Amino acid sequence: MTVLDNLQIELPSWAFGNSGTRFKVFSTPGTPRSIEEKIADAATVHRFTGLAPVVALHIPWDRVDDFAALRRYATDLGVTLGTINSNTFQDDDYKFGSLTHTDKAVRQKAIDHHLECIEIMAATGSRDLKIWLADGTNYPGQGDIRGRQDRLAESLAAIYQHIGPDQRLVLEYKFFEPATYMTDVPDWGTAYAHVTALGDRAKVCLDTGHHAPGTNIEFIVAQLMRLAKLGSFDFNSRFYADDDLIVGAADPFQLFRIMFEVIRGGGLDKSSDLALMLDQCHNVEAKIPGQIRSVLNVQEMTARALAVDTDALTVAQESGDVLGANQIMMDAFYTDIRPALAQWRGERGLPTDPMAAFAESGYQETINAERIGGTQSSWGA
Amino acid sequence: MTVLDNLQIELPSWAFGNSGTRFKVFSTPGTPRSIEEKIADAATVHRFTGLAPVVALHIPWDRVDDFAALRRYATDLGVTLGTINSNTFQDDDYKFGSLTHTDKAVRQKAIDHHLECIEIMAATGSRDLKIWLADGTNYPGQGDIRGRQDRLAESLAAIYQHIGPDQRLVLEYKFFEPATYMTDVPDWGTAYAHVTALGDRAKVCLDTGHHAPGTNIEFIVAQLMRLAKLGSFDFNSRFYADDDLIVGAADPFQLFRIMFEVIRGGGLDKSSDLALMLDQCHNVEAKIPGQIRSVLNVQEMTARALAVDTDALTVAQESGDVLGANQIMMDAFYTDIRPALAQWRGERGLPTDPMAAFAESGYQETINAERIGGTQSSWGA
Amino acid sequence: MTVLDNLQIELPSWAFGNSGTRFKVFSTPGTPRSIEEKIADAATVHRFTGLAPVVALHIPWDRVDDFAALRRYATDLGVTLGTINSNTFQDDDYKFGSLTHTDKAVRQKAIDHHLECIEIMAATGSRDLKIWLADGTNYPGQGDIRGRQDRLAESLAAIYQHIGPDQRLVLEYKFFEPATYMTDVPDWGTAYAHVTALGDRAKVCLDTGHHAPGTNIEFIVAQLMRLAKLGSFDFNSRFYADDDLIVGAADPFQLFRIMFEVIRGGGLDKSSDLALMLDQCHNVEAKIPGQIRSVLNVQEMTARALAVDTDALTVAQESGDVLGANQIMMDAFYTDIRPALAQWRGERGLPTDPMAAFAESGYQETINAERIGGTQSSWGA
Amino acid sequence: MTVLDNLQIELPSWAFGNSGTRFKVFSTPGTPRSIEEKIADAATVHRFTGLAPVVALHIPWDRVDDFAALRRYATDLGVTLGTINSNTFQDDDYKFGSLTHTDKAVRQKAIDHHLECIEIMAATGSRDLKIWLADGTNYPGQGDIRGRQDRLAESLAAIYQHIGPDQRLVLEYKFFEPATYMTDVPDWGTAYAHVTALGDRAKVCLDTGHHAPGTNIEFIVAQLMRLAKLGSFDFNSRFYADDDLIVGAADPFQLFRIMFEVIRGGGLDKSSDLALMLDQCHNVEAKIPGQIRSVLNVQEMTARALAVDTDALTVAQESGDVLGANQIMMDAFYTDIRPALAQWRGERGLPTDPMAAFAESGYQETINAERIGGTQSSWGA
Repeated sequence: MTVLDNLQIELPSWAFGNSGTRFKVFSTPGTPRSIEEKIADAATVHRFTGLAPVVALHIPWDRVDDFAALRRYATDLGVTLGTINSNTFQDDDYKFGSLTHTDKAVRQKAIDHHLECIEIMAATGSRDLKIWLADGTNYPGQGDIRGRQDRLAESLAAIYQHIGPDQRLVLEYKFFEPATYMTDVPDWGTAYAHVTALGDRAKVCLDTGHHAPGTNIEFIVAQLMRLAKLGSFDFNSRFYADDDLIVGAADPFQLFRIMFEVIRGGGLDKSSDLALMLDQCHNVEAKIPGQIRSVLNVQEMTARALAVDTDALTVAQESGDVLGANQIMMDAFYTDIRPALAQWRGERGLPTDPMAAFAESGYQETINAERIGGTQSSWGA
Repeated sequence: MTVLDNLQIELPSWAFGNSGTRFKVFSTPGTPRSIEEKIADAATVHRFTGLAPVVALHIPWDRVDDFAALRRYATDLGVTLGTINSNTFQDDDYKFGSLTHTDKAVRQKAIDHHLECIEIMAATGSRDLKIWLADGTNYPGQGDIRGRQDRLAESLAAIYQHIGPDQRLVLEYKFFEPATYMTDVPDWGTAYAHVTALGDRAKVCLDTGHHAPGTNIEFIVAQLMRLAKLGSFDFNSRFYADDDLIVGAADPFQLFRIMFEVIRGGGLDKSSDLALMLDQCHNVEAKIPGQIRSVLNVQEMTARALAVDTDALTVAQESGDVLGANQIMMDAFYTDIRPALAQWRGERGLPTDPMAAFAESGYQETINAERIGGTQSSWGA
Repeated sequence: MTVLDNLQIELPSWAFGNSGTRFKVFSTPGTPRSIEEKIADAATVHRFTGLAPVVALHIPWDRVDDFAALRRYATDLGVTLGTINSNTFQDDDYKFGSLTHTDKAVRQKAIDHHLECIEIMAATGSRDLKIWLADGTNYPGQGDIRGRQDRLAESLAAIYQHIGPDQRLVLEYKFFEPATYMTDVPDWGTAYAHVTALGDRAKVCLDTGHHAPGTNIEFIVAQLMRLAKLGSFDFNSRFYADDDLIVGAADPFQLFRIMFEVIRGGGLDKSSDLALMLDQCHNVEAKIPGQIRSVLNVQEMTARALAVDTDALTVAQESGDVLGANQIMMDAFYTDIRPALAQWRGERGLPTDPMAAFAESGYQETINAERIGGTQSSWGA
Repeated sequence: MTVLDNLQIELPSWAFGNSGTRFKVFSTPGTPRSIEEKIADAATVHRFTGLAPVVALHIPWDRVDDFAALRRYATDLGVTLGTINSNTFQDDDYKFGSLTHTDKAVRQKAIDHHLECIEIMAATGSRDLKIWLADGTNYPGQGDIRGRQDRLAESLAAIYQHIGPDQRLVLEYKFFEPATYMTDVPDWGTAYAHVTALGDRAKVCLDTGHHAPGTNIEFIVAQLMRLAKLGSFDFNSRFYADDDLIVGAADPFQLFRIMFEVIRGGGLDKSSDLALMLDQCHNVEAKIPGQIRSVLNVQEMTARALAVDTDALTVAQESGDVLGANQIMMDAFYTDIRPALAQWRGERGLPTDPMAAFAESGYQETINAERIGGTQSSWGA
């Protein structure tokens, strides 16, 4: 399982804050009031799993005066700061678009926000600037589809020229939401066309919840890796909409197939620059255990995917043995890898059962008691 | 167009408040701060269209001390108070369900809320209690599907026994959201099974945005009318999720087909008790014009549906003339009925172009100037 | 695992014939030319698995002169004849409908076909008459939705009155295909409304591939069992359309959840009258091994569903422990039950690895050599 | 309406043959038995509409000994031969793929078939070679997703090098069907990546029925035109699957929006090389009138799209007037353009009502009487 040692998952700082639906955001005891408390929670996930040494930030939610200090804070807790996620969807100016807006001043404001993010990256030591746009329209005619694309290309180019030689711009696509009629980066094809136009340090981010029903996501994984344009994952799972559930919860077999293609494409090789990030909302479930469960799910499905007998698979595929090939996949998926993973953890000084160990650790009770007062972190704060 | 005179549309009070997505709620000038201001806006829609004489309320958002006074206030403005919509999704107690909750105390609280709504109905003169439940679960295993149904049936029965002889309980179904894995009333079949078990005064509410992709909604309309169980519509339109867009905006031909089945089933007969309500969110578009456009869309598609030559259609259908039958439908849909509707309005002393007339009326400018301070109405207030 | 001993799966005779898409039907060596050869293959599946003692027939595809003789033939091979499936979709008369047709003569022809099926049931000892209708329309206006429902109800009633006291009419619903605009029995609600109107011996058939994207199928299972109206399953799996793939192949976790609800609703109790049938097409994979794999998948997911610690689950559910409840489900799903099932098979004198045993048995080679000439069975023959 | 004069639609020869679903292909009187009869029918559509001067061929279905003679035959009837459509899905060799097959011999056979198509193009004077691949897999593991892409790229390159300087290779994508788990060219992104790798004379074909639910097709139109890679349309409409219904039948507003983007992108300019083709199946409706209705639908929605006041639209868009912008679109869509089109036809010596004129022409009765005996054309012949 040496490949498994290469598996590193990036946690989103916002997963530790409150989240919800348009109908209601429930608050919970112990929710962080600051980025420092979020990082502390993220470091806890890593401490119990050994899988999550990186924390992604969201600007402006996680803006601090001194990012270099924040970086040291994180390092002291055993984690590093990762992807910087921009936000151009919560300001009134962005009601009708950000990088695609018809008003040059608004576009420039959005571009400037990304330049600020790039500055932050220098301080935090982050490699990736991730851009997810809420840009889109709700009604036919509201916007000029073509013109919006042209302005998007121009804005992205303006940002990209500030991306450093060791940095990357990662463009995320999303099938729908919050816009209803038209999303400006709705599919991997659009993201791919844009990042190809930008250059080698521009890549695509694949969020597993951002596709139409019936989409074969592992195909897109394989294709983008083949095209050398898969920059990162936003892992989560969903049943119908962008549910942002725990990765692997809705369809573990799909996660298995995705990780199989990641491995097939070299995504877990030592030389790989593929970032595996979570992007989830824990609306009704406990947040820290939710993150622990998530990274364990990724690890578990990775381990099962690694167990596929690829030599036998190739033979079956080339001989047209449909059932035989499928069975080789299923055998790996159905094999209970959990004892082996418990052993893997034990050998590395980690709790063999991270969920139980966290529950028994008293960490949750401590933060519930300590984090009184202040404003709990949530979307928009 | 005498049938057209029977068309009355109920406006939702909440359409005049701010709404949005989980990512952002934009506020707009002139937004009502109270139910009285919402009613004033709704009455304005009616004044310009002659189509919307009823305002639906949402409890607790629209709770007042004196509902009888509110009723008089509405009457003075030329509208009446309509459906009472309950709310069991914004209280922390309801995190894991309301009428379906495993905790009897929570269920009783939710039942009591509906009994309060029934009391309000007496004061407002409302006929319908509409129940939309956010109940559901996000993860497999989180709840016992079967047990939740049994508790739902029990809770509904407890409410139904308080429904007066001239009142109705209307149960709405919704395919998804806010719950992600399982919704307790996800489809018309479930709503139908429950209201059938309750009795004659229990009906189904069909929200046009609450179906899976590819669902033939007019079929459900026809079926529920055939079963005498279609109580009301929540009109809106959508592209993928429950977008709550202006009815007819996403697919006007679908609205035409729906209204054709409504007419086919007697829903616009004088004796019909079918309620036609809007349930929309105006996130980025102007609210009052958005409601005006909505009721005009319903009227226009109704008028086009009334123009179908049903005798010729029957002949074509019975002779297997697929293209001929389809063409009869399309001819009605493609005929520009707007001049006739302008004349219809003129004859009734209404502005022939309600959208233009409202824009020129100065109403919006007045409320923008007057409604300063206070808290704008929105979801949850 | 005593409950597991109650698991009996019904095989469809047509799974052993050639099948395909509208683009191409591939033929394969050894394909049966007669119902006797299909039964021989089905009996082989049972011999290797101990799970499939019943064979469903399709009329007219499987029509013989002497059904009593066919019954004895089956018995001699160790299987019995099961559900009789009617066919009203391959005759030119049915181009515009069968039980719903506007022409009374066509309706009567379709009714008479079902009466013939009921006569066959007497000879074969079958309990269930399964009705799947291809009825529907391709274009808006082509048919009168409401009138078609009324005629359907009338036709079903005419058939139902011939259903014997120990027989059942099972009505299958299907979301789409072959009709494109409107399907006359598109959802479980429609099937439920019809069978409820018919009487106690009318039930619903749930085909796992006949739902819109995002539909929670286990919810429908739970609901129909609660309403005592789930008559049978047509098991298969799908990615987007009605793919008729091997059950459990596309989403084994979904099959696990379905079987969990079947068990929860008493569907594997000794007293249960729920029929578990396969309805699949083996277009590119080997047919007999495809059926073996299918019944093993049902057994395996049933065994995993039986492993759920339901007492602990209830505690977690009632305490709002979302992650805990989910983990209990996942623990059962992730546990490798295959060794226990191999033992179960061994104890019953069955091959511990049925797939391997069949491959080594020489059966396929024998039928490949013997079944030369004649017309291979396929859709329509 | 000078732009409207540029509208030319290509008819598929196979639309005049019988087609159906996997369940049943209905035959109809007058169905062509040869490509000559198909062309005669296509020329008839053109004679009544003035819109369809080109006929696309399908090889091998339309293979003849002397394509030059066929070309003269078409010219004599007033039409030309257009796109050559290859077929690699009806030969047993292609069971597990054609251009993507693991077996080099099968790939070469498929490549050679395309080279034959290119030779035919020389004889027929066709510009476009259209490649739609049925390649894909039904089960996870059946094929190596990545390897299949690599082989596809290699095969396409082998074909492309034979594409003449005035010819084009047009690659069609399809979301699903006939393969169920994975389609080798499932989305526009994949087609775009491949044709970009090939060169300037490789383009994408957009079939309007080949997308996931909820996909905004006009966005893809706008994007591909922006990228200068939209080669052609396969027009049809659908409700859920690839229904191949008459274009505009399922959602005329969508067709309007698509044509709006075609115009916006210059697709109806004199210099445009965009091919507008139909790809439909007339399963239950009359074939020739079905094609007439189809081209009229395209013309009608094009005319409505041309009626959009684009200057006013831009003003509304740039001022954030969502409702105003939408209304400008809807005004054009709702305007009854049919009288103007009747006049347009009259001025050009065409029947003002092509559907009625065809019905009265006696053409159908003549071919019904004449085309007796022989084998009716259908899929596969």
